[in-house]
Amino acid sequence: MPILKQLQRYVVTSGGKRIRPLFIYYLGKAYRLENAELIRLGSLLEIVHAASLLHDDVVDGAEERRSKPTGAKLFGNKAVVLGGDHLLSSGLQALNNLGNPQYMAVFTDAIKALSAAELLQMQQHFNLKTSRKTHAEVVDGKTAVLFRAAGALVAIMRGQGDFYRSETAELGLAFGRFFQYRDDYLDYFDAARLKKRGLQDFSNGIVTAPLHILLQAAEKPEQRRIEALWRAVEAGDTQQALKEIPDLMAKHRVAFKCSADLARMQRDILAGLEALPEKAPRERIRAEFQKILAVAPP
Amino acid sequence: MPILKQLQRYVVTSGGKRIRPLFIYYLGKAYRLENAELIRLGSLLEIVHAASLLHDDVVDGAEERRSKPTGAKLFGNKAVVLGGDHLLSSGLQALNNLGNPQYMAVFTDAIKALSAAELLQMQQHFNLKTSRKTHAEVVDGKTAVLFRAAGALVAIMRGQGDFYRSETAELGLAFGRFFQYRDDYLDYFDAARLKKRGLQDFSNGIVTAPLHILLQAAEKPEQRRIEALWRAVEAGDTQQALKEIPDLMAKHRVAFKCSADLARMQRDILAGLEALPEKAPRERIRAEFQKILAVAPP
Repeated sequence: MPILKQLQRYVVTSGGKRIRPLFIYYLGKAYRLENAELIRLGSLLEIVHAASLLHDDVVDGAEERRSKPTGAKLFGNKAVVLGGDHLLSSGLQALNNLGNPQYMAVFTDAIKALSAAELLQMQQHFNLKTSRKTHAEVVDGKTAVLFRAAGALVAIMRGQGDFYRSETAELGLAFGRFFQYRDDYLDYFDAARLKKRGLQDFSNGIVTAPLHILLQAAEKPEQRRIEALWRAVEAGDTQQALKEIPDLMAKHRVAFKCSADLARMQRDILAGLEALPEKAPRERIRAEFQKILAVAPP
Repeated sequence: MPILKQLQRYVVTSGGKRIRPLFIYYLGKAYRLENAELIRLGSLLEIVHAASLLHDDVVDGAEERRSKPTGAKLFGNKAVVLGGDHLLSSGLQALNNLGNPQYMAVFTDAIKALSAAELLQMQQHFNLKTSRKTHAEVVDGKTAVLFRAAGALVAIMRGQGDFYRSETAELGLAFGRFFQYRDDYLDYFDAARLKKRGLQDFSNGIVTAPLHILLQAAEKPEQRRIEALWRAVEAGDTQQALKEIPDLMAKHRVAFKCSADLARMQRDILAGLEALPEKAPRERIRAEFQKILAVAPP
């Protein structure tokens, strides 16, 4: 079907970093696991990720005008939903052919967590009172889950029964969390690195770590001002927020506080990497992810 | 999450006939298969069906105003997409726990076929030149596939290796096709039985069997008139079509021709039922589906 070909091209050429396949590949190689199986599982993680992005692109009437040129905008809501279903079921079909129900358990857990986290985030849309705990749940379900899955899959390949408690699943979870919090950080303080306009999370009504830190540090009148800017953005006027929020962030040294948190997370991940047995792939992970792991000091 | 509870309530109370679980249950009982497993598999077929309906409800901007109060209208596009994903992945998780990869193969095949058929139908939207062959593909992928899956699952439970070629899968396929063609028939000739307004397929720009038969029987000027009515409906004006199409159908005895086709399909199904070994469940299928199998003569 032409529409499936078009969606396929869109997904393949949309310029993802393929970080999930790279992660599972080098993690598995660090334990001398089989190439072909790691590549298959990595592709399937990327397929789940891509299908989830297609579904997350779906918009409702009023929102439509504001959104960037996403799949849903190019092909329509209905096409990306059905195309995402087709992509996902093709992936699960291929996964099932690998003949290991433990793999399937990890993937179905992950898909469930992804949809729950995206629903949770949707429900928190423009809720300035979103708690840190809720945001942490969104981060775990939306991003960390597929890296944790990568680690769990490696553990399964190694024959570990309690695969979610394996050191590789823990490392994946830590890496995935870091990856998302780093994204949240860069959105406010170095958006150029993401090749995006900055403050998108604020503009899209999503409370992330920098805003939590700012709200905690701000004085009462500032808090009220942030609230007012937030409501203005919700009503469609982002201009004033894009001017004032960076100043407030600077005043309260949020970039510094936030990157200190990231540096702590990073140390744990590097320690986890240190424990991997094979040197060459371990160094490859460090090399591949150097750009990701290095957060520029503010 | 409250939204998941609401979606759950919507799905459970939306008044489906649960025909897929009933079908697999009595079909399996006709081979003395285990109650609990049949009920589990039946629930999972219904879950896939419900998730597919949620995703099929998703609409694009302009369409939104015309549609009936679907899930997407009540909860928004995004919520039904993510809710559908959550429902489906919960179902696949439960399915995986049954520990039979052949079951998983049948379900992933079916989900893939469902999304492909819905994409195909979407691409044929308001295409009066949709061929019979294309419509047959849509019917197989959109409706017959889950009945065929029911039959294949029963074959797997019976230990049959080539489960798609089993008599139960064939019976399921025939039953599913009949079920959809009967629906297409009733939409034009006895919509009250579906508790719907009639001519919805024409109003929604979907070419089905009655319209194929009419187009074939109609003379050139009538064909041009049908085309004009179709374009008017596409532009939002259904009134004239609702008046004229039934007259044309009556003139060309489409109901009669169409119900003759259905009667042929029905005979095959009844012959297939006849071959089932256990009498009581076989009679239950006939009783349960009497209303469905009986198409009132025009």
